[in-house]
Amino acid sequence: MIKNKPLILVTNDDGFQAPGIRNLVNIMLELGTVVMVAPDQGRSGQGHAITVNTPLRHQLLKDTPDLKEIAVNGTPVDCVKLALKQLLPAVPDLLVSGINHGGNSSVNILYSGTMAAVLEGCMENIPSIGFSLCDYSHDADFLSSASFIHDIASKVLNQGLPSGVCLNVNIPAIPKENIKGVLTTRQGQGRWEEEFDARLDPRGRPYYWIQGYFSGNVSEEGTDEWALANGYISVMPVTYDLTAHQMIDAFGKIFNK
Amino acid sequence: MIKNKPLILVTNDDGFQAPGIRNLVNIMLELGTVVMVAPDQGRSGQGHAITVNTPLRHQLLKDTPDLKEIAVNGTPVDCVKLALKQLLPAVPDLLVSGINHGGNSSVNILYSGTMAAVLEGCMENIPSIGFSLCDYSHDADFLSSASFIHDIASKVLNQGLPSGVCLNVNIPAIPKENIKGVLTTRQGQGRWEEEFDARLDPRGRPYYWIQGYFSGNVSEEGTDEWALANGYISVMPVTYDLTAHQMIDAFGKIFNK
Repeated sequence: MIKNKPLILVTNDDGFQAPGIRNLVNIMLELGTVVMVAPDQGRSGQGHAITVNTPLRHQLLKDTPDLKEIAVNGTPVDCVKLALKQLLPAVPDLLVSGINHGGNSSVNILYSGTMAAVLEGCMENIPSIGFSLCDYSHDADFLSSASFIHDIASKVLNQGLPSGVCLNVNIPAIPKENIKGVLTTRQGQGRWEEEFDARLDPRGRPYYWIQGYFSGNVSEEGTDEWALANGYISVMPVTYDLTAHQMIDAFGKIFNK
Repeated sequence: MIKNKPLILVTNDDGFQAPGIRNLVNIMLELGTVVMVAPDQGRSGQGHAITVNTPLRHQLLKDTPDLKEIAVNGTPVDCVKLALKQLLPAVPDLLVSGINHGGNSSVNILYSGTMAAVLEGCMENIPSIGFSLCDYSHDADFLSSASFIHDIASKVLNQGLPSGVCLNVNIPAIPKENIKGVLTTRQGQGRWEEEFDARLDPRGRPYYWIQGYFSGNVSEEGTDEWALANGYISVMPVTYDLTAHQMIDAFGKIFNK
């Protein structure tokens, strides 16, 4: 008996037209039947937001035996929920999100719609991986990492992932020949240094644009930040359990009553 | 030398007019000088979303020596960022978020704008606490938990919190005399059972409303779900390190190359 081809759900937060997701779809077509369900426009920085005050709509863009493409007027997490509950013919064997235009290492995982989609898939017990390339430009070189992405996704398809664990894969923006390899990492330290751009509108009222730059600590070996700074692709195992387990006993003495 | 009164930043995701934040402001006024910077409307379910495509504006609603109130046309995380970088006179001694109309136990921490604000404060090294009452109604009884909230906030003001750790406090929707006490917990299992409400618009095109109910596992002692189901206020220590540390070695054998 021949096993059916795996069913792979592809999403992102840069919208269905982004070169990153087009590349990811092409890589996944080598591994299975692909259904892309992605936002109809860029929804970066949306974190785990869901849409509750307006209805969701979907638009079928492509419908072939190997590839179905659907755009949704919602967030990445909306896309995953709608795909799993309404749009997919079966539970997918794999969820991949990306390839994000820009890195999602360190605390960026919290802001990232790309990684929120991955966490949502993980909560639904679907092996889920986010891929991000540390290059924000529209014409970033997504081809240089294609073989690595194929390899990681293929391993997860074959071996699965433990319940409650998903992957945050970040790829340095360097030529393929300079990529030193793949390292399994932990979340590095880093923070956004915000400097709001404060302006006055024509009526003299203030308004602000969020702007800033990310400052990561690349000196701690073993972290995603260190791996990327040293030419490695970072594979970080991710949990959605946010408990600071090491504090439970100490805090019990302070707060329990 | 008399120490100045502590500076307390208060925010939420239900908007500045919600009874939950009005109650939290009143409790905090017993502990320090309060600056409320909250969304100008309900922004529930916004997770860690930030606003990058439209400018932020703020509106000063109240300006007294003890209490300043500011509404912002953004998400809870926007409010924290704008408060810390533009609106506050100094780094606050404490950030509190809530009191949320509805619980934020288990995986709800990921969707919650209330808790995203707390995580944002924590990333900025400010002792930060989220308070949520397990009652979605507008006229929920926020008074029954006031003394507990005062007590927890007071302890954190006096003792601080370790770097990288914040608190997710959930309060059962029961009369004060039935609250058995306070327990320090870990994140419980649970998931949203979504059943999209699929409809057709007058032009025959489908649209969907997200609907669903949360199903928590209340049988595991020590979890937030168990504590709430058994009449306890749950205090969960929270980290923004999403690394599944226990998997790093095993995954290294699979993915490193």
